Amino acid sequence: MRQTKLVVIGVGHVGSQVLTDCSHLNLFSDIALIDVQQNVAKGEALDHRHALAASYRTNSKIYAGDYADCADADVIIISAGVSEKPRPGEDMPPRALMGKENAAEIRKVMHGITQHTKDAVLILITNPVDTITYIAENEFHYPKGKIFGTGTTLDTFRYRQIVAGHYGVDPKEVSGFIVGEHGSTAFPAFSSTTVGGLTLPQCEELLPQAEPFDAAFVQQEVVHTASDVFNWKGWTNSGIGEVAAALARAVMLNEKSIFPVTATVDGLYNCNGEAAFSMPCIIGRNGLEKQIELPLNAEEYEKLQLSIKDIQNTLQYVQ
Amino acid sequence: MRQTKLVVIGVGHVGSQVLTDCSHLNLFSDIALIDVQQNVAKGEALDHRHALAASYRTNSKIYAGDYADCADADVIIISAGVSEKPRPGEDMPPRALMGKENAAEIRKVMHGITQHTKDAVLILITNPVDTITYIAENEFHYPKGKIFGTGTTLDTFRYRQIVAGHYGVDPKEVSGFIVGEHGSTAFPAFSSTTVGGLTLPQCEELLPQAEPFDAAFVQQEVVHTASDVFNWKGWTNSGIGEVAAALARAVMLNEKSIFPVTATVDGLYNCNGEAAFSMPCIIGRNGLEKQIELPLNAEEYEKLQLSIKDIQNTLQYVQ
Amino acid sequence: MRQTKLVVIGVGHVGSQVLTDCSHLNLFSDIALIDVQQNVAKGEALDHRHALAASYRTNSKIYAGDYADCADADVIIISAGVSEKPRPGEDMPPRALMGKENAAEIRKVMHGITQHTKDAVLILITNPVDTITYIAENEFHYPKGKIFGTGTTLDTFRYRQIVAGHYGVDPKEVSGFIVGEHGSTAFPAFSSTTVGGLTLPQCEELLPQAEPFDAAFVQQEVVHTASDVFNWKGWTNSGIGEVAAALARAVMLNEKSIFPVTATVDGLYNCNGEAAFSMPCIIGRNGLEKQIELPLNAEEYEKLQLSIKDIQNTLQYVQ
Amino acid sequence: MRQTKLVVIGVGHVGSQVLTDCSHLNLFSDIALIDVQQNVAKGEALDHRHALAASYRTNSKIYAGDYADCADADVIIISAGVSEKPRPGEDMPPRALMGKENAAEIRKVMHGITQHTKDAVLILITNPVDTITYIAENEFHYPKGKIFGTGTTLDTFRYRQIVAGHYGVDPKEVSGFIVGEHGSTAFPAFSSTTVGGLTLPQCEELLPQAEPFDAAFVQQEVVHTASDVFNWKGWTNSGIGEVAAALARAVMLNEKSIFPVTATVDGLYNCNGEAAFSMPCIIGRNGLEKQIELPLNAEEYEKLQLSIKDIQNTLQYVQ
Repeated sequence: MRQTKLVVIGVGHVGSQVLTDCSHLNLFSDIALIDVQQNVAKGEALDHRHALAASYRTNSKIYAGDYADCADADVIIISAGVSEKPRPGEDMPPRALMGKENAAEIRKVMHGITQHTKDAVLILITNPVDTITYIAENEFHYPKGKIFGTGTTLDTFRYRQIVAGHYGVDPKEVSGFIVGEHGSTAFPAFSSTTVGGLTLPQCEELLPQAEPFDAAFVQQEVVHTASDVFNWKGWTNSGIGEVAAALARAVMLNEKSIFPVTATVDGLYNCNGEAAFSMPCIIGRNGLEKQIELPLNAEEYEKLQLSIKDIQNTLQYVQ
Repeated sequence: MRQTKLVVIGVGHVGSQVLTDCSHLNLFSDIALIDVQQNVAKGEALDHRHALAASYRTNSKIYAGDYADCADADVIIISAGVSEKPRPGEDMPPRALMGKENAAEIRKVMHGITQHTKDAVLILITNPVDTITYIAENEFHYPKGKIFGTGTTLDTFRYRQIVAGHYGVDPKEVSGFIVGEHGSTAFPAFSSTTVGGLTLPQCEELLPQAEPFDAAFVQQEVVHTASDVFNWKGWTNSGIGEVAAALARAVMLNEKSIFPVTATVDGLYNCNGEAAFSMPCIIGRNGLEKQIELPLNAEEYEKLQLSIKDIQNTLQYVQ
Repeated sequence: MRQTKLVVIGVGHVGSQVLTDCSHLNLFSDIALIDVQQNVAKGEALDHRHALAASYRTNSKIYAGDYADCADADVIIISAGVSEKPRPGEDMPPRALMGKENAAEIRKVMHGITQHTKDAVLILITNPVDTITYIAENEFHYPKGKIFGTGTTLDTFRYRQIVAGHYGVDPKEVSGFIVGEHGSTAFPAFSSTTVGGLTLPQCEELLPQAEPFDAAFVQQEVVHTASDVFNWKGWTNSGIGEVAAALARAVMLNEKSIFPVTATVDGLYNCNGEAAFSMPCIIGRNGLEKQIELPLNAEEYEKLQLSIKDIQNTLQYVQ
Repeated sequence: MRQTKLVVIGVGHVGSQVLTDCSHLNLFSDIALIDVQQNVAKGEALDHRHALAASYRTNSKIYAGDYADCADADVIIISAGVSEKPRPGEDMPPRALMGKENAAEIRKVMHGITQHTKDAVLILITNPVDTITYIAENEFHYPKGKIFGTGTTLDTFRYRQIVAGHYGVDPKEVSGFIVGEHGSTAFPAFSSTTVGGLTLPQCEELLPQAEPFDAAFVQQEVVHTASDVFNWKGWTNSGIGEVAAALARAVMLNEKSIFPVTATVDGLYNCNGEAAFSMPCIIGRNGLEKQIELPLNAEEYEKLQLSIKDIQNTLQYVQ
C-alpha cells in the first residue's frame, strides 16, 4: 500500500512545531517521530493525535517510531541536536560552539537513516546547518540533491517580511534572497530583490514611504529579529517550523518552488566542493533539483566570499 | 474598516500553539497578543510573522498589543495563568491547587477586557477551566453565551481518538461526548456514543476486533492519555491549541457546530446556576448558543452529579 | 519518482467540477484528463492550470492524457457517459433510460484502464451508478474493494443538510445514511440517524423547532432537492464534485472515513452478489475496505429489499 | 451579529465557478446569489449547499437572495451579463460586440447594489471588463477604490504559467504582469518580469532550456491559450473563478497583495480619467488601495498607449 509518509527526527521545540505545521498540510497519511528521548516522541505523538479528532483535520497516523520507519518514508526532517540557550545582554553566540556536539549527533542520525533508506528526501534543520548539511551529505554517500538543509530560508522569510513591512505589501509579493551562511555572515542580495516586479530603487520612487529604505539597517534588522525572537521568547520555532513544512510540501507535490536552501556547492561562486551554503534552489520531488547562481554585484560577491570562509572555519572547527 | 480580529491573552506553551493553529485557519486579518511578559508576546508575534512569508500563508498582522486591542476583536482566547508542572511518578495533581492563583489572574484579565468590550466572544482555556469560567462569566456581567470555556472538548477529542482507534475508523466518524468537569471526574457518555451511526453495542457486532471494547478501560485511558502527554512531554499544548482554533472557526463562520464547552448551567441536570460544566453546546457567531441536555443513563447521571459536586468544591476552595 | 497522481475520465460538467474540487485538495502532483472529446480535455486542463498561478494554489501538473496515464495513477475518477437532460414539468426520468448507453461507454473505459493498471483505486460516478459499478466491478476482474461507485453519498449529503437545516446545526454534526439505490428508491435510515449523538426522537425533545420533524416529508425532500437542482440549474455537479473529492482524499490519506458508496454486495442484507448498492463503508488507501451492514428496522429493511429489486431490474434491462 | 458575507451576482458558468472557488476559501459565513434567472440562483445555491455536508467543508449559508442582501455584504462579485459564444475557425470576436448589452445589464446591477450599499468592495468580471468597470465606477459615484474589475489578472496568471512552464519552475515564483486592456491589445511587461528574482535575460543564462525564450511567441501564446480554452471547452471559467476568489481573499484578509486589476486611471501613464485599464495594484480591505505605475520600456509604453486607445474606442462604441 502506497502511503504518504513523513519522519521527524528530534522533537524538541523545533521538531514539535515542524510536526504541527506539517500536520496542517493535510498531505501525509503517516508521520513517525524519532527522538533520543522516546517518551518525548510518544508524548508529542499523542498530543498531536488528539488534535486530529477535529472536523477539519486529517486522520493521519502519528506515532513514535524508530529508524526502521525511514524505509518507506517520502520525506525525513531532522531537527535533532542541542540548541543555543538565550544569554540575556548578548547577541546569539557563534553557532560553532554547538557544532561539535551536533555533528556527533547528526552522524548517529545519518547512520540510523542510511541503514534503511537512501530514497527519502532529507531536510536538515540542525545548526550550524551549513556545516551539519556538509557532513551529512558528504560522509554518508547520500544521493546528491536528496539531502539539503533549510539554510537561509528562514532568514529570507524574515527579510521579505521586513521589506514587505516597509512598503506596506504582502511578503508573498517580495522576491529576494538571503544568501551565504545561515548565521551572522548571511546577507540580503539587494541587487536582485523585487517587490511586485519593481526593483528596490523603483520601489523608492513608486511606493514612497515616510522613511527611505535603509539597506544597512535592513541587513542588521534581519539578524536582530532572529536574536529578538530568541531572547524574548527563549527559542525560535514558529518560523522554522513553517520553513520545513513549506519545503516538505514543495517536495511532495513536486512544485519546483525556489527556496534558498543549503547544500555542498561545487562549481558555483568560485566554490569547488569545500563548503555548503545557501543560494536559490529549485525544489521538487527529487529534492534540491538545481542550484541557481544568483547574480551578485561586486559588494555582494565579496560578502559571499567572506561568508563561505566563515562556514569553512566552522567546518574545520567542528570536524 | 472591518477587520477579522483575534486576541490571544497569555502566550506560554498553550497560547503559542493556539496562535499557530489559529494562524493556519487563514481567517483572521489581525491577531494581537497580550502577555504579562511583554517580551514573550513580542517574540511570539515576530516568530509567527516570519512564518507568514511562505506562499500558502495569510499575510495576517500579528503583533504584541494591549487590552485596548480587545475593543474591536471578534474572538478573544484566554490562556493566561500558571500551568501544572509534571511530577514524575504521580498523576496530575488536583487542578484546585493552581486554582487560586489563576482565579486572581483571570480577574485581572477580565477587568482588562471589559474596560474595552463586551461584544467579543471569549474562549477560556485557563485551568481549572470550569471554575475559571464560572468566575469570569458571573463576576463581570459578560453577556450570556458570549463567554465559555474549552471544557471537556479536549477530553472528547481524546475519547474519540481512542474509540476510533479501537474500531479502526476516522475519529471524525465518532459522535460521543465527555461531560462534566474538565478534570478527573469527567466521564464518557457511552450510552449516546455512535460510530458512523452505530451504537457501541452495534459496533461490537458489526466491527468486531480482536479485543472487545472495554468501557472501564477506555474511561481510564482518556484520563491516562492526558497525564501521559503531560509527563512525557512536560506540558500539553497541541491538542488544546486545535480545540481553541476549532471553536474560533465555529464562531467566525457561524457554523452551529456542537462542542462540549463549559459554562454556568442553570436549569439542566438539576443544576441551578451553582456550577459551570460541560455538555454538548451549539457554537455559532453569538458564541455558546444552546446547551443540550444530552440524555444520560442512571449510572452516567450519578457520575455527573459527583462531577458537579467536585467542581463546586473547587469553586469554594478557589473563591 | 513517486508522484501523487489522479486521473479523471470524462470531463463534462461533472468531471470539470471534480477536477476543480480535487485540485483544491492540494494533494495531487499530477492530474491527467481523458475524454472522448480530446479538445474538451485539453481546454479543461488549460483553464484549470491558469487558476494554479495564484499564490495559495498547488503547482499541480494538469494535462490532457490517455489511458497510459492510468499506469501509475493512485486514484481514477470516472464520470464518462451521457447525462440526463432536464424535462420541464417532469421529475427526473428513470435512470435506466440512459443505462444502456453508459454501460457500453463504461466497458470501453474499463477496457482502457485495465490495459494499464489494476492497482489504482477506481471511483465511479457515471449513472445509473449501481448498475455501472456492478458491470465495471464484475466484468473486468478488478481487485475487490479497489473499485466502487459514489452511490448514495450525494443523497446522504443532501439528507444531512436537510436534517441539519431543520435543527439549526452544522451538517457535519449529523450522522445518518441514505441506503440502497442511488435513485428514486433510496431512503434515509432514520432509525440510526443521530445529530450530535442524539437520536431523532431525542432531537425533537431537546432541539424543538416550530415545526416537528416530518420523516415522510424529509424523505421526499431528499429526492426533490435533486430534481430541483437538475431542473433549475440544468445539471447537478457541485455536490457530486465534492463527493468525489472527499472520497479521493479519504483514499489518499488512508482516512478510514465512512461513506455510503456502492459496490457488489455478497452476504449482507440477504443479497448474494446479484446487485451493487450503497451502505456505510470504510474508505482507506485500499479503497472500499469494509461494508457495514447498518441495522435497519422492519420498515427500512423492506424498503431496502424493494430498492435492491429495482437495481436488479435496471441491471437486467441494461445488460 | 457580524457575519462575513459575499454576494455573487450572475451565476452562469463563471458565477458558478466563482461560487465554488469562494466556498473553498472557508472564509464566508454567508453567501447570497443573485441572478435574473431566479431558478438558476436557487439551483446553484442548493447544489453548492449539498457539497458542504462533507467533513472538511465550511457550513456556509448559501442561498438565492436579492439586492437587499448587498446591504451588509463585505464583498460583491459581479459576473452578470452575456458571454461570447465560440465560433469554430475564428479567434474570439472583439469584446465590443457584447459591450452594449452588458453595459445595459451592469447599469441595472449597479442600480440594484447602490440602493443598498456603498460600503462593500465590488469586483467586476463582466466583459468587456475595462469598459464595464469604467461605467460602473463613474456613473454611480461608488467610492473610489471600492470598485474594480478583474482586468488582466487572468491574463497575468496565464502569462506566469507560460513563463514558469518554459523554465520548469512553480508559477508562484514568477513576478510579471500583463498590462493594459483585458483583451487583444494586452501585453506582457517583459522588462520587469522576474523568475525567482532573475530577469528574463538572466534566466536565459542561468536556467537555459532546449529552446530559447521567445518573447513574441509568448505574447501570442497568452492570447492563444485564452481562445484555446474558449474554443475547446466552450467557455472559460476555471481560471477566472480563481482570480475572483484570490481577490476576495486579499480583500477579506487585508493582504495588501498585488494584482493587475482594472480601474479608471487618472494621472498615470499619461491617462487622465478617460479610461480604465490594468496595472499592478495593491489590494486590501479597502479594495484597490494603490495603482502602481510599473516602469515600461519604450516599446511597452507604446503598446500601452495603443491599448488605452482601444479601450476608449470600445467605451465610445458602448456608451
